[in-house]
Amino acid sequence: MKKANLICTKCKKQFPLTHINPRCDICREPLEVEKVTSGKIHEGNILKQTMLERYADFFPFTRLDKEISLGEGFTPLAESPKLASELSVKNIFFKNESQNPTWSFKDRGTVAGVQHAIGSGHTRVGTVSTGNMAVSVAAYGARAGLKTFVLVSGDIPPEKLNPIAIYHPILIKVIGDYGKLYFHSLEIGKQQGIYFINSDVPLRVEGSKTIAFEICEQINFEVPDYVVVPTSSGGNIRGILKGFEEFRLCGLISKIPKMICAQAAGCAPIYNAYRSNKETISSVETPHTIAHSIANPYPPSGNEVLRKIKENEGTFVAVTDEEILRAQRRLAGEGIFGQPASAVPLAAVEKLRTEHMLTEHDTVVCIVTGGGLKSTVILKEHDLKVLHGKLEDLNILIENEL
Amino acid sequence: MKKANLICTKCKKQFPLTHINPRCDICREPLEVEKVTSGKIHEGNILKQTMLERYADFFPFTRLDKEISLGEGFTPLAESPKLASELSVKNIFFKNESQNPTWSFKDRGTVAGVQHAIGSGHTRVGTVSTGNMAVSVAAYGARAGLKTFVLVSGDIPPEKLNPIAIYHPILIKVIGDYGKLYFHSLEIGKQQGIYFINSDVPLRVEGSKTIAFEICEQINFEVPDYVVVPTSSGGNIRGILKGFEEFRLCGLISKIPKMICAQAAGCAPIYNAYRSNKETISSVETPHTIAHSIANPYPPSGNEVLRKIKENEGTFVAVTDEEILRAQRRLAGEGIFGQPASAVPLAAVEKLRTEHMLTEHDTVVCIVTGGGLKSTVILKEHDLKVLHGKLEDLNILIENEL
Repeated sequence: MKKANLICTKCKKQFPLTHINPRCDICREPLEVEKVTSGKIHEGNILKQTMLERYADFFPFTRLDKEISLGEGFTPLAESPKLASELSVKNIFFKNESQNPTWSFKDRGTVAGVQHAIGSGHTRVGTVSTGNMAVSVAAYGARAGLKTFVLVSGDIPPEKLNPIAIYHPILIKVIGDYGKLYFHSLEIGKQQGIYFINSDVPLRVEGSKTIAFEICEQINFEVPDYVVVPTSSGGNIRGILKGFEEFRLCGLISKIPKMICAQAAGCAPIYNAYRSNKETISSVETPHTIAHSIANPYPPSGNEVLRKIKENEGTFVAVTDEEILRAQRRLAGEGIFGQPASAVPLAAVEKLRTEHMLTEHDTVVCIVTGGGLKSTVILKEHDLKVLHGKLEDLNILIENEL
Repeated sequence: MKKANLICTKCKKQFPLTHINPRCDICREPLEVEKVTSGKIHEGNILKQTMLERYADFFPFTRLDKEISLGEGFTPLAESPKLASELSVKNIFFKNESQNPTWSFKDRGTVAGVQHAIGSGHTRVGTVSTGNMAVSVAAYGARAGLKTFVLVSGDIPPEKLNPIAIYHPILIKVIGDYGKLYFHSLEIGKQQGIYFINSDVPLRVEGSKTIAFEICEQINFEVPDYVVVPTSSGGNIRGILKGFEEFRLCGLISKIPKMICAQAAGCAPIYNAYRSNKETISSVETPHTIAHSIANPYPPSGNEVLRKIKENEGTFVAVTDEEILRAQRRLAGEGIFGQPASAVPLAAVEKLRTEHMLTEHDTVVCIVTGGGLKSTVILKEHDLKVLHGKLEDLNILIENEL
């Protein structure tokens, strides 16, 4: 490992990088890897390079096990001039994370976590998740030949269970308070030597930085005005912001975009705290939204996101399920089919533009965190049009549609 | 359009590139774009470049509409030393096409087809498909703002229908002989000015060439001994082979790999013809396989694949559903979850290695054509292991698994 410390995001206490608990033992807030202040991009042919190689200066690894890569990252940034015109913003881009190996942004943090686990001598990894992260850790654990524990909640539907199980991790449905499981897993990890790559462990947050790095490269280091991130645990938005900050410290960009923390109205603990001027979040009692993958009622990085986005002069927004569904269809009209959570940023842009928080001078990047095939059950909520006809009547049927 | 003709794959008759019918009007065999004999790769930062830009010399386009791109291609080539050792081959690689914008290889051909449609003045595109191609054409048609017709069979399950409908094409369930629909669509296309980007239209086949181009780049122009392709209509394997041939003509590689046409035993018209020494394929009466996306009973490029792969000294193989399922699990053990058709190449390698058609000196590339989330219903066929436990018993449960 390169020399780098973990620092408490709140009280700034330092810990060694090998510290197994991702939280400060004094103030219980999340730790993060200290910021990189000098580094450059290792230019190369991306067809042959891994994400961790290209951005190696920004990771605390002294060795890279290239074979653990599944080809994560390097996702497209698709511009939509049509939507920019309709919404009356300068530009709107979609960073399509559904083109990752397990079809969500989680693979970026997982590969960093697995690399750290291997580098620190672990042979066992784990995660607490019922969604994208469970799939991602199961895949990379299998890839790296590590014993992989995936702890899911007892009521996980089969639609979600089998796509985790196919990678054959040690998959455990846990009966009991799922909210407590996150904290319990840290204890188990310590006792059993399992590196739990949970939602906001420092190295997973480091992995998310690469989203910012790629956006900078993709828009020629000009930096957008806003980056909108569907937010649940808070690890991803923290990582993206940290990525921009590090590129600025390294002189690669001249400003930092404002971050927009976008949540589902049915589970918006960070937005709620912001609206009521609180400094800490409260647990949402009965989360209810179609955007399951961002429905964490008590996000472990919630307080830090609140602090950090306020300091960044970004903002917080919550959108309803109806707005999410409408944005999901609208996004598909641009050729991008995201899971409901991935439509939250577009819904947020629509809302913020109506409220004049965004203007016609703004360039906005929306993070499409995961692919639409992750939750096809939701599609029946749309009133999707299908015609029927006999083969011999086809010509007339088509003519009517021209 | 650059000056290039279409040539009949059988009788060699020439047609202009704008010829709307993808088949020869004399021998009814598929047409293809004449081979490129001089060209180079346009090196650039893939984060900012499109696939059609990088390989522009190999496409007959004089103008590129970059905005129609969704970031197709540039998929990872994942090596699996563990499987190479277990199977006793020199190297085995997986070209993971599930990381395309609609999670299958079809996007490569679709973007080329849409570019050709726009370049030739079409405002309407269409396709006949119930699977990957339907989704892909719906997405790119939406992206390009074209009126998009997707003709699916009357018995398509909702699992497959909704992920097409979400892009809001003009989606028509056609009651009648689905086999006839392919030929019927060509008539309709001519009458109504709809460019049908079907499975083996010349420009779709051109798009598939990029799989070969990328493999060459990814293994440093050393070229594998074998490339194994799940084969249905035959357009993809034709395109990949053509890509290697063109790179050789251009002096970029020194040899051409042998192609392996891999089919599902329950629907193997090309393999059947090869086994019985026929020169033309016969329709499979009752196709039955879990690999739906390669279950075309009468592949339009079947005869050409038969001719071409024999000439290439490649081979043909068919694998059972049981073998496909086993290979799907095994591939997931490497971190790659493919749809059943995508596991066919690995199953084929297992079979051909047992039969000593492949040796320990061979480097093999398997094409993983589409992502596993495309058909999750099939996962219940696997006996996937799931444990259950109470939160308070978790420590003991995990200890038992160490």
